[in-house]
Amino acid sequence: MNRDKVVLAYSGGLDTSVILKWLEIEHNLDVIAVCIDVGQEENFISVKNKALATGASKVYIIDVKEEFVSDYIFPTLKAGAVYEDKYLLGTSFARPLISKKLVEIAEKEGAVAIAHGATGKGNDQVRFEATIKALNPYLKIIAPWRQWNLKSREDCIDYAKKHNIPIPVTKEKIYSRDQNLWHISHEGGNLEDPWNEHDKDIYMMTVNPEDAPDKPTYIEIKFEKGIPVSIDGIKYSPANMIYKLNEIGGSNGIGIIDIVENRLVGMKSRGVYETPGGTILYEAHKTLEKLVLDRAVLSFKKMVSEKYAQLVYDGLWFTHLKNSLDKFVDNTQEVVSGTVKMKLYKGSCKSVATKSPNSLYNEAFVTFGEDDVYNQKDAEGFINLFTLPLTINAIMKKEKNEKEKQII
Amino acid sequence: MNRDKVVLAYSGGLDTSVILKWLEIEHNLDVIAVCIDVGQEENFISVKNKALATGASKVYIIDVKEEFVSDYIFPTLKAGAVYEDKYLLGTSFARPLISKKLVEIAEKEGAVAIAHGATGKGNDQVRFEATIKALNPYLKIIAPWRQWNLKSREDCIDYAKKHNIPIPVTKEKIYSRDQNLWHISHEGGNLEDPWNEHDKDIYMMTVNPEDAPDKPTYIEIKFEKGIPVSIDGIKYSPANMIYKLNEIGGSNGIGIIDIVENRLVGMKSRGVYETPGGTILYEAHKTLEKLVLDRAVLSFKKMVSEKYAQLVYDGLWFTHLKNSLDKFVDNTQEVVSGTVKMKLYKGSCKSVATKSPNSLYNEAFVTFGEDDVYNQKDAEGFINLFTLPLTINAIMKKEKNEKEKQII
Amino acid sequence: MNRDKVVLAYSGGLDTSVILKWLEIEHNLDVIAVCIDVGQEENFISVKNKALATGASKVYIIDVKEEFVSDYIFPTLKAGAVYEDKYLLGTSFARPLISKKLVEIAEKEGAVAIAHGATGKGNDQVRFEATIKALNPYLKIIAPWRQWNLKSREDCIDYAKKHNIPIPVTKEKIYSRDQNLWHISHEGGNLEDPWNEHDKDIYMMTVNPEDAPDKPTYIEIKFEKGIPVSIDGIKYSPANMIYKLNEIGGSNGIGIIDIVENRLVGMKSRGVYETPGGTILYEAHKTLEKLVLDRAVLSFKKMVSEKYAQLVYDGLWFTHLKNSLDKFVDNTQEVVSGTVKMKLYKGSCKSVATKSPNSLYNEAFVTFGEDDVYNQKDAEGFINLFTLPLTINAIMKKEKNEKEKQII
Amino acid sequence: MNRDKVVLAYSGGLDTSVILKWLEIEHNLDVIAVCIDVGQEENFISVKNKALATGASKVYIIDVKEEFVSDYIFPTLKAGAVYEDKYLLGTSFARPLISKKLVEIAEKEGAVAIAHGATGKGNDQVRFEATIKALNPYLKIIAPWRQWNLKSREDCIDYAKKHNIPIPVTKEKIYSRDQNLWHISHEGGNLEDPWNEHDKDIYMMTVNPEDAPDKPTYIEIKFEKGIPVSIDGIKYSPANMIYKLNEIGGSNGIGIIDIVENRLVGMKSRGVYETPGGTILYEAHKTLEKLVLDRAVLSFKKMVSEKYAQLVYDGLWFTHLKNSLDKFVDNTQEVVSGTVKMKLYKGSCKSVATKSPNSLYNEAFVTFGEDDVYNQKDAEGFINLFTLPLTINAIMKKEKNEKEKQII
Repeated sequence: MNRDKVVLAYSGGLDTSVILKWLEIEHNLDVIAVCIDVGQEENFISVKNKALATGASKVYIIDVKEEFVSDYIFPTLKAGAVYEDKYLLGTSFARPLISKKLVEIAEKEGAVAIAHGATGKGNDQVRFEATIKALNPYLKIIAPWRQWNLKSREDCIDYAKKHNIPIPVTKEKIYSRDQNLWHISHEGGNLEDPWNEHDKDIYMMTVNPEDAPDKPTYIEIKFEKGIPVSIDGIKYSPANMIYKLNEIGGSNGIGIIDIVENRLVGMKSRGVYETPGGTILYEAHKTLEKLVLDRAVLSFKKMVSEKYAQLVYDGLWFTHLKNSLDKFVDNTQEVVSGTVKMKLYKGSCKSVATKSPNSLYNEAFVTFGEDDVYNQKDAEGFINLFTLPLTINAIMKKEKNEKEKQII
Repeated sequence: MNRDKVVLAYSGGLDTSVILKWLEIEHNLDVIAVCIDVGQEENFISVKNKALATGASKVYIIDVKEEFVSDYIFPTLKAGAVYEDKYLLGTSFARPLISKKLVEIAEKEGAVAIAHGATGKGNDQVRFEATIKALNPYLKIIAPWRQWNLKSREDCIDYAKKHNIPIPVTKEKIYSRDQNLWHISHEGGNLEDPWNEHDKDIYMMTVNPEDAPDKPTYIEIKFEKGIPVSIDGIKYSPANMIYKLNEIGGSNGIGIIDIVENRLVGMKSRGVYETPGGTILYEAHKTLEKLVLDRAVLSFKKMVSEKYAQLVYDGLWFTHLKNSLDKFVDNTQEVVSGTVKMKLYKGSCKSVATKSPNSLYNEAFVTFGEDDVYNQKDAEGFINLFTLPLTINAIMKKEKNEKEKQII
Repeated sequence: MNRDKVVLAYSGGLDTSVILKWLEIEHNLDVIAVCIDVGQEENFISVKNKALATGASKVYIIDVKEEFVSDYIFPTLKAGAVYEDKYLLGTSFARPLISKKLVEIAEKEGAVAIAHGATGKGNDQVRFEATIKALNPYLKIIAPWRQWNLKSREDCIDYAKKHNIPIPVTKEKIYSRDQNLWHISHEGGNLEDPWNEHDKDIYMMTVNPEDAPDKPTYIEIKFEKGIPVSIDGIKYSPANMIYKLNEIGGSNGIGIIDIVENRLVGMKSRGVYETPGGTILYEAHKTLEKLVLDRAVLSFKKMVSEKYAQLVYDGLWFTHLKNSLDKFVDNTQEVVSGTVKMKLYKGSCKSVATKSPNSLYNEAFVTFGEDDVYNQKDAEGFINLFTLPLTINAIMKKEKNEKEKQII
Repeated sequence: MNRDKVVLAYSGGLDTSVILKWLEIEHNLDVIAVCIDVGQEENFISVKNKALATGASKVYIIDVKEEFVSDYIFPTLKAGAVYEDKYLLGTSFARPLISKKLVEIAEKEGAVAIAHGATGKGNDQVRFEATIKALNPYLKIIAPWRQWNLKSREDCIDYAKKHNIPIPVTKEKIYSRDQNLWHISHEGGNLEDPWNEHDKDIYMMTVNPEDAPDKPTYIEIKFEKGIPVSIDGIKYSPANMIYKLNEIGGSNGIGIIDIVENRLVGMKSRGVYETPGGTILYEAHKTLEKLVLDRAVLSFKKMVSEKYAQLVYDGLWFTHLKNSLDKFVDNTQEVVSGTVKMKLYKGSCKSVATKSPNSLYNEAFVTFGEDDVYNQKDAEGFINLFTLPLTINAIMKKEKNEKEKQII
């Protein structure tokens, strides 16, 4: 007699190991463990073996790194989406991709449910489930952290021991972390008081800015239609582009942010993020846009960026609005081609020069002095009409005051 | 026989000296020279003497530094207004204040016109004139650069020599600059090609980040209702607050930006700005807001910030919309009280810790583990309804596909 | 031995009568029935008696009609808030007021909980509970429809009979309705298929437009700072203003809308609303604003209106964002004084004339022909600079094309 | 010896007839008269003859009606763009099309300039010139009303008589009008005082609502991807669709608006517009969107609509931002297919029923009572998290108050 199947988002860590066993025991399900490689540092062979040892009926290890960068990171970069002015969405946009793969496998395997290890307090549960519902509303979702009576890491360890689940022999886990090729996040530990400065030994992708080289590093990044294609003249695949920039940025202490952010589920949390390559790319991209996009596009695109960031943060990747915003963004990016020179130095990342075949910067117009293209006398007419509402308003008030004086 | 009077925005430099004489000669006007002290480095006694020597009938030197910070800088800071994501509006918000003083003096003196030395290619002419029209639509405006036939610095020097105007014996002027206590701007010279990296010897308010101290500087800034009131426990007047932060920030290489921006008059220009204290204040203020404002307020306030920045940049300070936005902003700032710890290091300026009596960060809610205040089971219901539009959309599509299959 | 107390939002209808008893029996609570008079047509003496007969330990009947209009309806009118372009928020803004009164009574009476009769599918549950949580987060909330096992009107009738609850002898209830002095809503019945045209006998506050008088009705409404103060020269209190306009509008078939709207809980629903007086006021107010607000204010206020409407619809009345938006709105309304002449005719409601002491319409500027105030030559300069980004873009493209041709 | 050529936007009316002659005489140019048929009621043969008689070297009469509807009206309809909540942009979007044709002819004919008859006070000059500059920045623009010394209609008549220009023998012209197949506008005359009600004999495309039939007219309009394709089952070409709806709408008094609007050049003006077919289409389209677009798309699209309307009104049709917004809009319209039943009655135009294969209205979710698809218990969790920011804020305040009390 066959058992129903469940697809589990499996990482090889304590939580999902316990969940694997719990699904089998408590729900009497065949568990298909799926580990998606989005660039986290991991020994995937060992993950596979651990899953099998814990009782998985089947294990998938899927490398989606290039897809991750091309279809999730680059669209978000082109949109200029940043959550609450700081967070580069590293965890947010990995979730829909992972969930998409889970749904594909569930459909292929004929599974009835998908399970994930996200807690009931965070954003990730929403991101996982939003994608699953959007892609297959008939799949059941199991979120053990909202259902079982294990309440802590300690409870999990007890459960693991009781059921002979192989658990990693690590020192006490201080921070809750999520890593992929774009970033790593840190939460918990002494970060839970926003008045604590974060410890420098937290860093995993960057050096402490004080330990970075004493001389700046310069690089030139070339973009085509909003997408980075080469560094210092050398072309890279999307994923390799990020790895290369992580290396350069990380060694210069670039891309550390420390913020209190608003979770979708209504509470504030505090996190430290390292996004070395991403920080460089966002800064370079934004600089190039300033050269090739006009004021009207730049201004409206900010509203698009803001909405885009909210959608990504909230897990609403596979939605009509997100798709429609992409069309807007892609059209703006048609001209975002050119080269930006970046200076990286002890934690600061600045663009220092830009050029583009589509540059709207026109020296002939801006240079002071005699010129043919711009007639300074035009400015008077411009100002008179541009400020006409102010003039009319002022006249109205003066005349009204006059009338009121006469009445008195 | 009395001549009509004109009020001239006078700086003591070459341009306005020539304008002073030109107004007298060509327009046959009594020139009242007005020099507004917004914190630019200047010998105002010498400015006064020069104006008189050039033919001014009267000279006003007016110190508005505290008013400048209280009524122009701080409201903009509270609004979080930044033009095109980078420019902290240092020149922009000085113009309405200067113009307001010019109008007051013109009305007091019974002058018929106001003259300024802004060129026909820049934003400042709009800012000056918008304010004048808003405050007194009956005053005539004279903008010599749009009217006379002097076309360059050289033409001005010739005119000055011809009319015995005392001109400063300076070396050749490379950059066009504007300074006040908030910032200094640099334009022209080799900046006119955006592919040129700017020269480091340009800096006047900051050191080159590479020359800043090898150890970070930490300061704690306390805010009350969105306004900075003390540094490391020591209270400062508004203007002194900026001076102190300029000193601290400048010595750490903070607040240099280099951008291509869109002028209101339709062209792009490239500028370098130094805003050491302002950069620290914006970063600190934004960090504090993250602790005390909820997600809805933060998100909507971004649209307000964007509009506010455009209004300030465009010189539309004395407008109904700007006033109404101020009311919104002031209400958001009621809770923006608290302390932010900043780390300044070789050009980077980061907040590292925050606290506030109005903090909406609540550790009890965010901490993982058993708790009373937050029921993780709530998340399931939340997700089900939050994502219901995705579910209904997915069901609609699946059922539509089914129907279409059956038809075929 | 005293039982704990619960405050119940009581209407006298079947549902809340059953809830009253159920709270007493199942929760063993003293039930304080509170009926808030927001202008619904009701015999409140009979409501009171029914509550006591059903077992209420105490009954409050509170007339909040003037407060409702002054503090909830007028601020929303001033904001120009309309949900999804059509819905005038009649039910939405009554809920926070009702809930505020419930909290006040609960605190005064020392009750531990508040109960309401809203179902688990609608918006009202959110609106009630959002207000309660905002005003007193320690009060327990009981929402029987989400908790008990009565699933339908029939279940309620059975429960009522079983417990001798006096129930109204009415014919079968077809529509679900909510009424107050601003509007009445209709849902359910044959409205549940959006392809059905709604029946004309549904109307309770208006006549069918085809049955309205064959001659138009004209009225003049005077506003002071955005608030209507008189009709045809006769002053009315806020609530009487609405009653009077309902009478005039209703008799002309004004204010019927029929829409599919998005509920906050993620589903679409279809409703018919009658808002005769409100429709007139919104139209008149908007017309007056066009005369006295400038383009910049009008345009930005639309974003505020949209957000305001969402907040009100979603029950987020007592929030920081809503308060801050009010400050913006109030500042815009400083000049919204004047008179609008309205024409009401067989279902259509149009403004036909406007005047205001703050009018920004200035005939001297707009009249064609010779004039002193406006120099048509200014337009050339205006256009040249206003369209300069288009010119520069076109030049860039032409020159780029040239270059590319030369290369080939 | 050949003279330079100028292309003139020629209507056959007094103004452009005078301009034609003036260009020839004062500028010594060969005038190519171009009359674009956008659906205005006109005898184009007579226009052609008149142009030749007045001295045109060549005349083009070009029928662009289908292009006008397909490429200008329908995109704007899909965008839902309405200027200042009322104006359906009838004149605005005709100008870029006309200008595009003028540029094409100028390039084909080797003309050096384009001339138009728009005055220096209105929007049309900007719309003409913005398009010309965007499409060919090297063409000179001649706007006689800003340059010559004719100041009024009377001056033009004198000039015409003096130069034997055939002028129409019409009764005194009261209103300034602009017509095409979408609408007619009326300005001037007694409309110049906003307190005057407009005269009913002004109407040209509609009947006075009081004179419309006493029985409502019902029609069903079918849309495919946002575009109307049939009425009551009968297909129409784009232009014929508008003509048919104008006929139906006009006979029912639909589509008259009377507004004070903000011109781009800074002043308010008052106009009456008749847009019978357009009003029906906008209402029907909006109703269909409510059925098939989700709340997030509808809400964001409102900001797009607002910006789109401003761009169209301001003549910024051929711009990067406008193109990018179109991409967004087109993506939203992928699902806007279905049928809307409209009721037209004595000036009011209401949708009464809608259906669509892409309907997101799902009766199973919305119906009250027992159901499988929606679990009412989910609402509690939803509300708890949706309102968590309110709860946390309330707790913060209560605890802060407690602390402050203890201190005292």
